[in-house]
Amino acid sequence: MADEVNLELFDNPRPGREYTITIRVPEFTSLCPKTGQPDFGEITIEYTPDKTCIELKSLKFYMQRYRNKGVFYEQLTNDILDDLAGACQPHWMRVTSRFSPRGGITTDIMAEFKTE
Amino acid sequence: MADEVNLELFDNPRPGREYTITIRVPEFTSLCPKTGQPDFGEITIEYTPDKTCIELKSLKFYMQRYRNKGVFYEQLTNDILDDLAGACQPHWMRVTSRFSPRGGITTDIMAEFKTE
Amino acid sequence: MADEVNLELFDNPRPGREYTITIRVPEFTSLCPKTGQPDFGEITIEYTPDKTCIELKSLKFYMQRYRNKGVFYEQLTNDILDDLAGACQPHWMRVTSRFSPRGGITTDIMAEFKTE
Amino acid sequence: MADEVNLELFDNPRPGREYTITIRVPEFTSLCPKTGQPDFGEITIEYTPDKTCIELKSLKFYMQRYRNKGVFYEQLTNDILDDLAGACQPHWMRVTSRFSPRGGITTDIMAEFKTE
Amino acid sequence: MADEVNLELFDNPRPGREYTITIRVPEFTSLCPKTGQPDFGEITIEYTPDKTCIELKSLKFYMQRYRNKGVFYEQLTNDILDDLAGACQPHWMRVTSRFSPRGGITTDIMAEFKTE
Amino acid sequence: MADEVNLELFDNPRPGREYTITIRVPEFTSLCPKTGQPDFGEITIEYTPDKTCIELKSLKFYMQRYRNKGVFYEQLTNDILDDLAGACQPHWMRVTSRFSPRGGITTDIMAEFKTE
Amino acid sequence: MADEVNLELFDNPRPGREYTITIRVPEFTSLCPKTGQPDFGEITIEYTPDKTCIELKSLKFYMQRYRNKGVFYEQLTNDILDDLAGACQPHWMRVTSRFSPRGGITTDIMAEFKTE
Amino acid sequence: MADEVNLELFDNPRPGREYTITIRVPEFTSLCPKTGQPDFGEITIEYTPDKTCIELKSLKFYMQRYRNKGVFYEQLTNDILDDLAGACQPHWMRVTSRFSPRGGITTDIMAEFKTE
Amino acid sequence: MADEVNLELFDNPRPGREYTITIRVPEFTSLCPKTGQPDFGEITIEYTPDKTCIELKSLKFYMQRYRNKGVFYEQLTNDILDDLAGACQPHWMRVTSRFSPRGGITTDIMAEFKTE
Amino acid sequence: MADEVNLELFDNPRPGREYTITIRVPEFTSLCPKTGQPDFGEITIEYTPDKTCIELKSLKFYMQRYRNKGVFYEQLTNDILDDLAGACQPHWMRVTSRFSPRGGITTDIMAEFKTE
Repeated sequence: MADEVNLELFDNPRPGREYTITIRVPEFTSLCPKTGQPDFGEITIEYTPDKTCIELKSLKFYMQRYRNKGVFYEQLTNDILDDLAGACQPHWMRVTSRFSPRGGITTDIMAEFKTE
Repeated sequence: MADEVNLELFDNPRPGREYTITIRVPEFTSLCPKTGQPDFGEITIEYTPDKTCIELKSLKFYMQRYRNKGVFYEQLTNDILDDLAGACQPHWMRVTSRFSPRGGITTDIMAEFKTE
Repeated sequence: MADEVNLELFDNPRPGREYTITIRVPEFTSLCPKTGQPDFGEITIEYTPDKTCIELKSLKFYMQRYRNKGVFYEQLTNDILDDLAGACQPHWMRVTSRFSPRGGITTDIMAEFKTE
Repeated sequence: MADEVNLELFDNPRPGREYTITIRVPEFTSLCPKTGQPDFGEITIEYTPDKTCIELKSLKFYMQRYRNKGVFYEQLTNDILDDLAGACQPHWMRVTSRFSPRGGITTDIMAEFKTE
Repeated sequence: MADEVNLELFDNPRPGREYTITIRVPEFTSLCPKTGQPDFGEITIEYTPDKTCIELKSLKFYMQRYRNKGVFYEQLTNDILDDLAGACQPHWMRVTSRFSPRGGITTDIMAEFKTE
Repeated sequence: MADEVNLELFDNPRPGREYTITIRVPEFTSLCPKTGQPDFGEITIEYTPDKTCIELKSLKFYMQRYRNKGVFYEQLTNDILDDLAGACQPHWMRVTSRFSPRGGITTDIMAEFKTE
Repeated sequence: MADEVNLELFDNPRPGREYTITIRVPEFTSLCPKTGQPDFGEITIEYTPDKTCIELKSLKFYMQRYRNKGVFYEQLTNDILDDLAGACQPHWMRVTSRFSPRGGITTDIMAEFKTE
Repeated sequence: MADEVNLELFDNPRPGREYTITIRVPEFTSLCPKTGQPDFGEITIEYTPDKTCIELKSLKFYMQRYRNKGVFYEQLTNDILDDLAGACQPHWMRVTSRFSPRGGITTDIMAEFKTE
Repeated sequence: MADEVNLELFDNPRPGREYTITIRVPEFTSLCPKTGQPDFGEITIEYTPDKTCIELKSLKFYMQRYRNKGVFYEQLTNDILDDLAGACQPHWMRVTSRFSPRGGITTDIMAEFKTE
Repeated sequence: MADEVNLELFDNPRPGREYTITIRVPEFTSLCPKTGQPDFGEITIEYTPDKTCIELKSLKFYMQRYRNKGVFYEQLTNDILDDLAGACQPHWMRVTSRFSPRGGITTDIMAEFKTE
């Protein structure tokens, strides 16, 4: 999805201080690549910014690109982490996705990025 | 139960990254081996995949095999851990089972698997 | 299911007083008649006894008969009402069933019986 | 149990006004008359006093008499209503008992007393 | 307590419309007249004003007068209703008191005032 | 939307008894007709069936037709009521929609259908 | 406040059907007219539209006009009811306000409008 | 109480793996040794079994022995830990007791056992 | 306040074992030293006893001494810790106080004592 | 904002002991610098005082200065930390802000200050 990532960034107002930003997106929906049926979930992004922060409106538009796209949960969570961490180059980032039950079974995925 | 394990696996989409998958199965039922009465519980599986991930539909069918089988809680939890870790060979896996009260008493079991 | 109803009854200890008994069975499971997959739910029975009350252990065994039976929700709820009201002949009875989500959709059914 | 009822009463401080007193006893225990096993529950008493109100300490002692006594839920609830309404002669009284699950099944009983 | 009631009132801003004001006082404390020990509770006042409304600061001071006074729950609730309804002459008023458990037993009292 | 309604129906298993079916669809999404932005909500359908009941899988597909459609909340709720009541001709039906907050404001709509 | 009411309205999409719209505004703030200190609360508006419905964005702006205005709770709730009912002329409307505790005391006001 | 401990044990089904068993007993009652009044609480037992596990029915009977016995909270919690750890010789065990409020005060005790 | 501390102590029943006692006092009230207005809060005491434990009834009386005393939150929490730790000489003690909101602001204080 | 910081301080009553003060301000509002629209949130301040503590009334007035000021979340949280830590020079301080959802997205920021 890398080619269509258009996340806006803005300058971190306190670049010298290590602080944490937590963004919760409870209105996430994508499609199951097998059945074409909609999946619903909540994506949480936590990060420690370095030089730039993610602008929220462009993040909302980024998330909406999954609305009619078929992706597996594991792929999706790792893709979002790659895209967001690639764009804003944070010290640390964690993406957690929590999907609504399918067949009585609930799935969460949690992936982290760290600079050395 | 090893002979009847037919879990489907799929390739881990990010084999180089250590991330965690949490699967909650709140609709679990088995039988008490002493009385033949049904037990009800919730099984939670957390793991860090290595080469393969567990496909959810086949996991659902695996869980349904306990529906008319008599097993003690302690045996059951350890068996599920052995079967799932044996099938997908994760870096780490934890299985937690929480059973509904019997005689006013509630039981949870938590078992872990780790590669050296 | 009428032929296999073996509910035990006992004499109402206060036959002259209109009072209400509420029984909640949170551990109910049956099968979907289409797919053969298990359904999970909670059955609530409320009634005003006349001459007899329902013995709880035999009610538990009655409920377990649905464990490996394929029935639709609407049929099931009405059948339970027919069987229980037929057995204990209450002044009034209400059966409510609440099923776990399937395909992201949750269903409850509520049916009542009243003597004229 | 009528012979051992020793409830203390005190004069209703506003006999002309219809008001409601609700007493919740969450620490109730009795024995199952079949198995001798303890049952645990919560008894709620609501009433509109006429000439007298029930003193709370003597109510606590009254409730403790069930601690080592074997009684069925339906009998128990109606007995408490008879004893309390018999003692304080209220305009209206309702006794509700809610018992902890046994064999996965929960039972509540609600009985009312009214003067004509 | 009638002689020390100093509730401030203000003119009802919509005297022609029947509307409801609900005031919750979760920080209420008085003394048990038997043991001298503190009781803690929450007082809720609901009323439909006629010509005047109760000013909140003076209500707070009114409630604080019970802090070191020994009164029974039933007396207290009816006294508050008498004092407040006497002061502001509402179309309707209800006072509900909910006391913290003593000896494992919780008590609520609810009393109403209505003009003919 | 009347022309594309393809709801499947099945025969009511107890046509002579007035009972209630409650269906909750927590995973509903449509588009805002002004901004094109996604809206998220929960639709609840309650009805008393006459001759036919609504099949759940076809209801799920019906709901998914709103996924990429721009409709106002008030229109949407009334349209769903018209379509579902038109299809299954119930004795009574109520559709309630609850939408996620927009601009800090939450909206629910509740509409009913009744046969004379 | 009547002179500055600029609520936008739109045509009721189902003028013949009696249905209910519930709007919750949890982010409301005004000033105390005595102390000048900010008050915080939640305003809920329920109404049955006749010919017109209230547009949500203009409602948001209407609510923001109270941000730096000093008004008593009782006045405020009745003013909002007058303004909104005056603008959209509904069959029925109810405005409920719930304010955060001040001096340990919480206040709610509920006022209704009805056409004859 | 050591002389009357009749806990049944069974062989740990996975003696080589360190796993945790959590048993919650929410229906616990004993007597206050000072006043003779009943106390109510919840006992939680967590342990890592070595060679043997505690059979639940015998644990239930063990807990019932406190029903008419007068013991202080601190003594009780330590006694249960001594008895259970003495019987099943676990790698690690923790007993936590949480008692219902007395005189507005709630007490919890937590004690641990560890093999060197 | 040291001169009026009359806490009763009793011998620790298991002096050799490090275990924890948690006491929650949800019914605490004192006065604001500035305004004389009552403050309401909850005090939690956690400690690992050495030779002696604190008797609960005398703790209740100790807490009641603050009822009509004006103290700031920070002073109060540290004073309670000094008094209790001074009396029972524990291995470790923590006092946490949580006060009800004043002016829309809530304050908690947590202080610890440790022997070297 | 440094020039207008008028926080009152008072002497730490136990300067030698490391203890923690947690202040929760659930009624916080500022303006979005882009749109001018109000934002609503909750600010939590945790700190370990050194020589001085922050007086709560002056903290309330400090927080109110943001009411009609346009600031981004990230700037705001860091500014508050700078102002408060600058004023009272604590051993450690953490400021956490939690904002109400905008466009379906929720943001929290957490920043810390530490003396070497």
